[in-house]
Amino acid sequence: MDNLNVGRHISGQFNEDLERVINHVMSMGGLVEKQLKDAINAMIEGDEKLAKKVLKGDYQVNDYEVNIDDECTRIIAKRQPAAGDLRLIMAIIKTITDLERIGDEAEKIAKVAQESFSKEQRDLLVSLENLGQSVLVMLQATLDAFTRMDFDAALKVHQTDDKIDREYEGLMRQLMTYMMEDPRSIPQIMSVIWSARALERIGDRCQNICEYIMYFVKGKVVRHTSPEDMENL
Amino acid sequence: MDNLNVGRHISGQFNEDLERVINHVMSMGGLVEKQLKDAINAMIEGDEKLAKKVLKGDYQVNDYEVNIDDECTRIIAKRQPAAGDLRLIMAIIKTITDLERIGDEAEKIAKVAQESFSKEQRDLLVSLENLGQSVLVMLQATLDAFTRMDFDAALKVHQTDDKIDREYEGLMRQLMTYMMEDPRSIPQIMSVIWSARALERIGDRCQNICEYIMYFVKGKVVRHTSPEDMENL
Repeated sequence: MDNLNVGRHISGQFNEDLERVINHVMSMGGLVEKQLKDAINAMIEGDEKLAKKVLKGDYQVNDYEVNIDDECTRIIAKRQPAAGDLRLIMAIIKTITDLERIGDEAEKIAKVAQESFSKEQRDLLVSLENLGQSVLVMLQATLDAFTRMDFDAALKVHQTDDKIDREYEGLMRQLMTYMMEDPRSIPQIMSVIWSARALERIGDRCQNICEYIMYFVKGKVVRHTSPEDMENL
Repeated sequence: MDNLNVGRHISGQFNEDLERVINHVMSMGGLVEKQLKDAINAMIEGDEKLAKKVLKGDYQVNDYEVNIDDECTRIIAKRQPAAGDLRLIMAIIKTITDLERIGDEAEKIAKVAQESFSKEQRDLLVSLENLGQSVLVMLQATLDAFTRMDFDAALKVHQTDDKIDREYEGLMRQLMTYMMEDPRSIPQIMSVIWSARALERIGDRCQNICEYIMYFVKGKVVRHTSPEDMENL
């Protein structure tokens, strides 16, 4: 990942501090991406060892959040940034909150991966593979848009959440049908539903991060605006 | 609500700006509390008109978030606050994000209130009354701790989330049993489950706000620390 584009956005004076904190956000993003990838694989393969690794790794994500938060507060106090610099720091503070919560969702998926499922129920978990893959691609594209602080890329990623929502809803209908057909498997299917829900929530959190990128670039809050108004920016 | 205690925490220079923004957070909190109360009542009474009112009111919550965010950024740029003042602004920026999301959860509950349920299924919604009441009390206590920036009160509220989680889990088991007994009602029961989940998430968000209060008062991030370490602060 390179952050040249971010460098172009910020004024000279803060470069060193800001570059450092941006690098930390990227490392955090890379770790969260790895956690999610491992959690999805653990779930699909039924790999308990990998699930355990994800559960153990979550404290590192939390440490990143606490440290970057602290770094941002110190930069504000020391450098008294204004305009674009301040907006960038605000965007970072909000982004890391969502990244940390994506880590929490990965943890939830890893917990489900540790539960015991019959062979048939295990097949249901595999049905999450497509949704998991779409969400992983969305997270990667979000982190990429963040690295380049690219408005257009962020807008494009933001719009893909519709696709995720549709995939999620289709899966939900399928899972509900299974429950109706075989009521004894309801507790296991509920676990699959919680995993699907966790994936869908990660899509929402990627959307949030895209909104912070757009806020930084355009200096305008795009949360709660219509897709058309976003495009017109 | 009074904010005398917050006044004691902040230095003279920023008083006017900060008092204004704190008053806005309180108004936002009051509105979110009203939205949640109305959503719960709409669900329990099956009051579609009230549900509609909640759905219509959400844009006001969103407006508060955008405006307070903007106010905070302007205060940082203009006043260049340090130490406690800066921590207070950081706590406010994070608090309003969670308040806005609590508003979103209330919206989800109101949407469920608009769905059609049979008389029997309606009784299931009534089973959410206790959980709804506990969550409402938790939100009120959270807003009260915020108003007074009271560490001990925030710690106490933080700990009540365990009770909410237990109530939620008990309810979940009950709802799963209903699904197994009457598979045809699964789609409706899933709606009840989403409402229960929304309530449980509001408890988590109240916990987040309590953590920001503790961060402001003690200058130390308490997120991700054990309950014992929190008490030792």
